[in-house]
Amino acid sequence: MIHTFNPQLYYHTMGSHPPVLTVHDGDTVITSTVDARGWDQNGESAADRGNPMTGPFYVEGAMPGDTLAIRFESITPNREWAWTTNMLAPAVIDPAVAATLPASEIVHWTVDVAQGVAYLKEPTPGLAQLKLPLRPFLGCFGVAPSKGQFISTATSGEYGGNMDYKGLVAGTTVYFPVSAEGALFYLGDGHALQGDGEIIGTGLEISMDVRFTVSVQKGKTISWPRGETDTFWFCIGNARPLDQALQHATTEMLRLLQEDCGLTSSEASLLMGQAVEYEIANMFNPAYSVVCKLPKAVLAALV
Amino acid sequence: MIHTFNPQLYYHTMGSHPPVLTVHDGDTVITSTVDARGWDQNGESAADRGNPMTGPFYVEGAMPGDTLAIRFESITPNREWAWTTNMLAPAVIDPAVAATLPASEIVHWTVDVAQGVAYLKEPTPGLAQLKLPLRPFLGCFGVAPSKGQFISTATSGEYGGNMDYKGLVAGTTVYFPVSAEGALFYLGDGHALQGDGEIIGTGLEISMDVRFTVSVQKGKTISWPRGETDTFWFCIGNARPLDQALQHATTEMLRLLQEDCGLTSSEASLLMGQAVEYEIANMFNPAYSVVCKLPKAVLAALV
Amino acid sequence: MIHTFNPQLYYHTMGSHPPVLTVHDGDTVITSTVDARGWDQNGESAADRGNPMTGPFYVEGAMPGDTLAIRFESITPNREWAWTTNMLAPAVIDPAVAATLPASEIVHWTVDVAQGVAYLKEPTPGLAQLKLPLRPFLGCFGVAPSKGQFISTATSGEYGGNMDYKGLVAGTTVYFPVSAEGALFYLGDGHALQGDGEIIGTGLEISMDVRFTVSVQKGKTISWPRGETDTFWFCIGNARPLDQALQHATTEMLRLLQEDCGLTSSEASLLMGQAVEYEIANMFNPAYSVVCKLPKAVLAALV
Amino acid sequence: MIHTFNPQLYYHTMGSHPPVLTVHDGDTVITSTVDARGWDQNGESAADRGNPMTGPFYVEGAMPGDTLAIRFESITPNREWAWTTNMLAPAVIDPAVAATLPASEIVHWTVDVAQGVAYLKEPTPGLAQLKLPLRPFLGCFGVAPSKGQFISTATSGEYGGNMDYKGLVAGTTVYFPVSAEGALFYLGDGHALQGDGEIIGTGLEISMDVRFTVSVQKGKTISWPRGETDTFWFCIGNARPLDQALQHATTEMLRLLQEDCGLTSSEASLLMGQAVEYEIANMFNPAYSVVCKLPKAVLAALV
Repeated sequence: MIHTFNPQLYYHTMGSHPPVLTVHDGDTVITSTVDARGWDQNGESAADRGNPMTGPFYVEGAMPGDTLAIRFESITPNREWAWTTNMLAPAVIDPAVAATLPASEIVHWTVDVAQGVAYLKEPTPGLAQLKLPLRPFLGCFGVAPSKGQFISTATSGEYGGNMDYKGLVAGTTVYFPVSAEGALFYLGDGHALQGDGEIIGTGLEISMDVRFTVSVQKGKTISWPRGETDTFWFCIGNARPLDQALQHATTEMLRLLQEDCGLTSSEASLLMGQAVEYEIANMFNPAYSVVCKLPKAVLAALV
Repeated sequence: MIHTFNPQLYYHTMGSHPPVLTVHDGDTVITSTVDARGWDQNGESAADRGNPMTGPFYVEGAMPGDTLAIRFESITPNREWAWTTNMLAPAVIDPAVAATLPASEIVHWTVDVAQGVAYLKEPTPGLAQLKLPLRPFLGCFGVAPSKGQFISTATSGEYGGNMDYKGLVAGTTVYFPVSAEGALFYLGDGHALQGDGEIIGTGLEISMDVRFTVSVQKGKTISWPRGETDTFWFCIGNARPLDQALQHATTEMLRLLQEDCGLTSSEASLLMGQAVEYEIANMFNPAYSVVCKLPKAVLAALV
Repeated sequence: MIHTFNPQLYYHTMGSHPPVLTVHDGDTVITSTVDARGWDQNGESAADRGNPMTGPFYVEGAMPGDTLAIRFESITPNREWAWTTNMLAPAVIDPAVAATLPASEIVHWTVDVAQGVAYLKEPTPGLAQLKLPLRPFLGCFGVAPSKGQFISTATSGEYGGNMDYKGLVAGTTVYFPVSAEGALFYLGDGHALQGDGEIIGTGLEISMDVRFTVSVQKGKTISWPRGETDTFWFCIGNARPLDQALQHATTEMLRLLQEDCGLTSSEASLLMGQAVEYEIANMFNPAYSVVCKLPKAVLAALV
Repeated sequence: MIHTFNPQLYYHTMGSHPPVLTVHDGDTVITSTVDARGWDQNGESAADRGNPMTGPFYVEGAMPGDTLAIRFESITPNREWAWTTNMLAPAVIDPAVAATLPASEIVHWTVDVAQGVAYLKEPTPGLAQLKLPLRPFLGCFGVAPSKGQFISTATSGEYGGNMDYKGLVAGTTVYFPVSAEGALFYLGDGHALQGDGEIIGTGLEISMDVRFTVSVQKGKTISWPRGETDTFWFCIGNARPLDQALQHATTEMLRLLQEDCGLTSSEASLLMGQAVEYEIANMFNPAYSVVCKLPKAVLAALV
């Protein structure tokens, strides 16, 4: 079944808020998200700032201990401009240099979805020719956290949240550990484009039209978000500092190889040691995010 | 001029050891390196373990404050086997899981340079079909450190050292800040292949034939190793924890954009924010290494 | 006014749960807390494990932007035994050594409140004579967090929470930034004794009788918990890693000196540089806690 | 035997420099140190800046694998002024706040050894009455590092170095792992006074008269500096970040309890968990330093 859902209210925490819609395993949802400051497709303020979320969607049958799969079929900017900040975040720069940088300001970009590019609305001399290809994704999405918590959409954890991973584009399937009845899926914080690390604190912040399909893996238990594209399996760890985020992601990949592929810890180590790739998703939010990836081609060769 | 140098002794620290050869700006050196345990192309022990280095090469005219450029023309395994460990390092795994893993052991791999692949000498059932493409690089190289120091080749710093960055393959040019007269270039610790992060503590450790060309950039001062491939510019930061390694790399890229490309801090931030890529080179050595990259295509569009 | 409150239910998150009692500025509350596993003064299970909290207490007139002061008049173990774990936490030990340690087990202690000492119920040979002085405090207390969040009592933040700071004994006044109407004060997780850092993951876990007095500082805004004893002012930072917890605590002390004592940033730096003391409260919980202290004697000399 | 040694040259690295004096087990040395910038007791520049060291002293019979004990009998400022910086280091402050602080400048203090106090030479209004008690110690001392390294006196490691621990006052005995023949003891960087963490980047920097006695513990092997005062045993860990420095110190204390006191890992954990204390020695240098302490009174009760 395909649901078209037009959001009327937005939450700034993930938790067991009243569901806005109940969906079933295999259902598809067509909806939209406002940007990180709550501006919608018409540039009007539809919600307070701070990653307002569309949802939660209650997934029938999803229970704690299960896994919720979200396949993003499309993530498309639904307006022609985005905003960013314009200064490197202190956390990514040597402290002595960070102290010399000016304060960050808001800058506007033109987003040309038809051409698939973005450029500064008022280009400065050094960036007069800058034109970057779009790569739209959602910065913040996930499920209700464990233990009855309601956690700000500024941060992230085992339940997903504000991971700002540029790899989470259309075509990707993401898996979450379910901690609350119905899983309670939230989404928002669209970025038309972003580099690794979200190192200026934003991507190209924009409202989105989104289409996704849910499925429930009963009795499948995972500890951190996992995902797959056509070419990679990946696991996401969210924590501070980067070391710990990487530990979570790597440990989850070890579990994947042991539990899903039947490797021993030594076999998994030999494989990961020579074939693993990492991405630094964000080093800006209260929890940083690191992604541990393995090529599907390598895993396919194991069988 | 092309020098063919056959090493007879190896150093385990980088510092102002007596040079083994003096070369000039533009000269090419053809030489070889033993593996991280000192085993040479015949599998014989030519040096003590712990990243024994070929060199140092004294580069005529290189003085503190200059930059030394090393272009690697070829890095080729010169024997048919390599060794690795076989267990994830504690630093990359959640501590509670790390405590459950068995101790690491040495494993041997067949390295087929002609076919360009590596596979386990004694494959275990789960990895019976594993065959990985070679991607040979040097794990440890650099120049004498600042302040008259002699520093173990186990670690790394502004002067390079044991960075274990898998991107440092043939075709790459690496730039080092010169801190001692003659720069004093060292090289060793070849890896036939390695994943990101050197997360089991080794790549496929192997002896190498290496050909490189030196050049001196008089009066050009940099703070951390930089490099370029056909498609990317990059900067390397070496420190613990990962956060700080990333800060050093990002700060050096900011300097590159300001000093070499004439961007303001805001322009550099806008560009890096949306186009930067990171690689985690190693999270095993005493200093971790993070690489900050920008596509040359993006920089070319700036002019 | 003095309230005697006998808890009937316990919460495992801090947030805007329905208040169990409304109190006014200057009121005193006499109540009790169960231990971290929910065992009460009779050794019966009164709540699920995971730092069950007594409260929340709604403080009339406390509004976001105000400061809530809690003065602990007494914190007294109300039973004769406590429990601890018995193995150093992986986070406080070199990873290679941590991997060699046995799993942690629960151990029981006799708590002799009259004599003011604790000792192992079943002493091992090496600790046959061990007798340690009691120093009872509460490991976890605080107010509802900002942004409508409900956060697990396993962790801590600007709102307090599971700080496990051994200095929070009777006689101490602690100040919290108010983020929700009525502040909503929670308390629990009593420790009869603990070393710095909570490095085995527990203090001597025990149920407590507690007496405290609340007051509201209208219009006084602070960013992190502060406190005072007879001899010290202190600020608490809660975060991972330790570096960041220390940064929060130090920054809050800088604010205290600037805003409350009228020092310039340079004067505050000169004073803190030579007179500051730190305590590592916990390096076990999801957020670590560091305390930045200044002797009242030094501050008194400033006037 | 008592040696009076008047230094004529100073080293800025620790390593196997030619010894300035050979001493024997049990010998006492009376000597002096210049301050961190090389200024001597007369305020004249006797060495380049950067922690110039007196020494090295070759200790007859000390071999790798032994332990060198240094008992400081006196550490006394030998001039009447000291200097400090005047601004909190970026590493100890929240990055966003650090960016707002002015640059650090040098400030001079009067050091009255007879009265045992220090005060600003040109007091600002807020610190007009500030008078702080002296607590003289050496910020930087240790032995030649392992593996033939020569390491800058800016940093620290297993061999000691620039630990800036305010507890290393006269009356303390410090133990170092010997890594080079003769141990090669260096000392310098006197501080008339300092708070925890060296958070403005200096103590009250001053030249010193020092008297110390050496002894060699043949066949006693330790991994990190240890020490004792009348009331405490302690271990020092030097690394970045703070978490890792604390891990090294805690692991060394675990070894001390197991090897010297015969406790099991569980007994050591139970004891440390409830009785351990930590000090943050410095969070400014390239390697941070954390001290793990246990009261001798607690250890005495074990026997």
